[in-house]
Amino acid sequence: MAPMPASITRESRPWERWLARRLMASLNDPDFSLELWDGFRAGATLSSVGTFRILHPTVLTRLCWQRSLAFDEAYSEGMLEVQGDLVEVLLELNRALARSSPNWLGRLSDRWQRTRHPHSFADSKSSVYHHYDISNEFYQQWLDAQLVYTCAYYSQPDLALEEAQVAKLDHVCRKLRLQPGETVVEAGCGWGALALHMARQYGVHVRAFNISHEQVAYARDRAKAEGLEDRVQFLEDDYRQIRGRFDAFVSVGMLEHVGIDNYAELGRQINRSLKPHGRGLIHTIGRNAPAPMDAWADKYIFPGAEPPSLSQMTEIFEAGRLSILDVENLRLHYAKTLREWHQRFEASAENIEHQFDVRFVRMWRLYLCASIAAFLSGDLQLFQVTCSHAENNDVPWTRADIYRSGERGGVSPSVRG
Amino acid sequence: MAPMPASITRESRPWERWLARRLMASLNDPDFSLELWDGFRAGATLSSVGTFRILHPTVLTRLCWQRSLAFDEAYSEGMLEVQGDLVEVLLELNRALARSSPNWLGRLSDRWQRTRHPHSFADSKSSVYHHYDISNEFYQQWLDAQLVYTCAYYSQPDLALEEAQVAKLDHVCRKLRLQPGETVVEAGCGWGALALHMARQYGVHVRAFNISHEQVAYARDRAKAEGLEDRVQFLEDDYRQIRGRFDAFVSVGMLEHVGIDNYAELGRQINRSLKPHGRGLIHTIGRNAPAPMDAWADKYIFPGAEPPSLSQMTEIFEAGRLSILDVENLRLHYAKTLREWHQRFEASAENIEHQFDVRFVRMWRLYLCASIAAFLSGDLQLFQVTCSHAENNDVPWTRADIYRSGERGGVSPSVRG
Repeated sequence: MAPMPASITRESRPWERWLARRLMASLNDPDFSLELWDGFRAGATLSSVGTFRILHPTVLTRLCWQRSLAFDEAYSEGMLEVQGDLVEVLLELNRALARSSPNWLGRLSDRWQRTRHPHSFADSKSSVYHHYDISNEFYQQWLDAQLVYTCAYYSQPDLALEEAQVAKLDHVCRKLRLQPGETVVEAGCGWGALALHMARQYGVHVRAFNISHEQVAYARDRAKAEGLEDRVQFLEDDYRQIRGRFDAFVSVGMLEHVGIDNYAELGRQINRSLKPHGRGLIHTIGRNAPAPMDAWADKYIFPGAEPPSLSQMTEIFEAGRLSILDVENLRLHYAKTLREWHQRFEASAENIEHQFDVRFVRMWRLYLCASIAAFLSGDLQLFQVTCSHAENNDVPWTRADIYRSGERGGVSPSVRG
Repeated sequence: MAPMPASITRESRPWERWLARRLMASLNDPDFSLELWDGFRAGATLSSVGTFRILHPTVLTRLCWQRSLAFDEAYSEGMLEVQGDLVEVLLELNRALARSSPNWLGRLSDRWQRTRHPHSFADSKSSVYHHYDISNEFYQQWLDAQLVYTCAYYSQPDLALEEAQVAKLDHVCRKLRLQPGETVVEAGCGWGALALHMARQYGVHVRAFNISHEQVAYARDRAKAEGLEDRVQFLEDDYRQIRGRFDAFVSVGMLEHVGIDNYAELGRQINRSLKPHGRGLIHTIGRNAPAPMDAWADKYIFPGAEPPSLSQMTEIFEAGRLSILDVENLRLHYAKTLREWHQRFEASAENIEHQFDVRFVRMWRLYLCASIAAFLSGDLQLFQVTCSHAENNDVPWTRADIYRSGERGGVSPSVRG
């Protein structure tokens, strides 16, 4: 186990206590308290949610300047502790931030949070390596057996994670109204679960793009093991390299990495990729209104990620002369999915610490819990958007078929072409 | 019958023939032809769709400058005739316009089309008088029995118009998850059908706003006749005068008249009107991308109307700190609804001509047919958008309940409180 930084023993000074009280006041006195290294407490003394414990004076001053970045780094390094349920405390923090109007502190620190990333092929590749190529083994410890690393769909609230991920794959396929023999292109295919599901369960031919080397290698092995190589082709390449026309275009959990500046290009790509009667679906983390990415997540977890608002997403469809047919917001499904991941993560925390170190475990714990809190507080949304060419009149008459039980869009699960 | 303008007998001149050919070429030679007053034809000679016949030279030159405004005025005045199915020819025109890139002609005439309307209380009132206060009797001749003047919902493609309008009212109520005893505010209630349906079928209390004097008078009479006055209150007032908090906010077919400059204010109004767990729904004609209103419809049919794109609509939800939960595009349902209206309109055309004049009949015929064509070509969309407060976690888990047959959201049709 990596050594934790020693906590400091000196007393907090008057200006530090003043700063701690100012920090809490700027949040309109939320339902948690702030405790300094010497036991001084600011804010709710009989807190019902929890306490942030600052273990070192530098954390306090950095908090004022770099807010979430300082908070998250200090937490990862063990210089800030949370007493109480981490998700609950972070949720209360989000709600307090939403209630408080931006003050001088907020405006100053926003300067730190506004980072923009280019998304050239090389940049995208390096961002994706950063996150997805850590190691398949790491993700296998807390994702479902199929390694679906996107929001599940709990068609019934009591589904297990594995079932809810299959339900998500089916929900996407039903929205795409896949028919046997059709062709599908997938932009950003992860470890291949959706591509394989579409080919296996719906009898379609899939070309799946991904720039993560490890993921593509894993997906190809699975296709081989399942005898689906003739129906699913995994390409280690950028979505901008898609050529040809398909009956469906699908992208689940890639848009976050595309970069808003590239949305018009993506829209034109979808336009070029879809046959006249083709259907498109984008599944993405989003926001209610444009906002910069959290600086810490941007630096450590997802470099270059930008969850868009629907207004920002419309750029894709306008540029691609596409018509939005359906938008579904599955925000709370992602909170539930992340809770499952977090539970499994904690069960494997010792293993993961051994594989990496304690800082890595704390960083990922914070990332998972902060994400749960963000979906619960409404800071993040999950959008599934279905589209078609603007002039296509061969679109589903209603959405009732998606919800017809026993039906499965295309073919029965036993069809294997 | 009002006299039709006499057609001219002189031969078309070389420059007029050149202009006619240029007009057709600027549309990339569409699948219809253009015939001048002396029989000269430009474009497809063996046209499969139809022919525009220009009966007077001034129409030709005005067409170049004022495009749709000139076209529509000339048609209304009988100086331009269409041979073939009016909807089909207009649809081919829309498609040709979508294919052709804007040239000098288009750019010039766009200057004519860009009109902006203020939406003060007084302006809104005068616009609404213009359209909705023509006479209830006029609309009774071609709308359904309940006078629902918005897109119907054909849950089954073979529904009759009356059934499809009831299905729409139910679709809206199901999306709002109305429960007996709840309170609803309706912004822009037309002749009251939705407000009465909600009270009668779902057992809720409704405050319904409308600035059309004739419509409110009619709606009040209906509430009285049905014994629903204690549950539905019709107010002759602007939506900006809504006070109090409700379980649901609903607006069907009003947003087109709100004006894009007022969207942020509307969003804040929805925010103020909804209880913490309240649901909101906006049903509106829209577009795939921002575009100016058709100049003729703006001048003669719907002064000040602006069908928004989804990107423009997001202003409402962002300003109101609301979360978009669901968007459904019912474009083709409006084409079908309008076809029904048009059929009934033609069956009553003689009556209507007697009540008004031939120009009025031609104007409304063109309006109905051009609207069908616009929904079929994808120039217009129909969006139903559901929302809630951003921080509300008491939102429906899935949309399956909307489609569960036999269920009706709140209470059975027999409940009458």
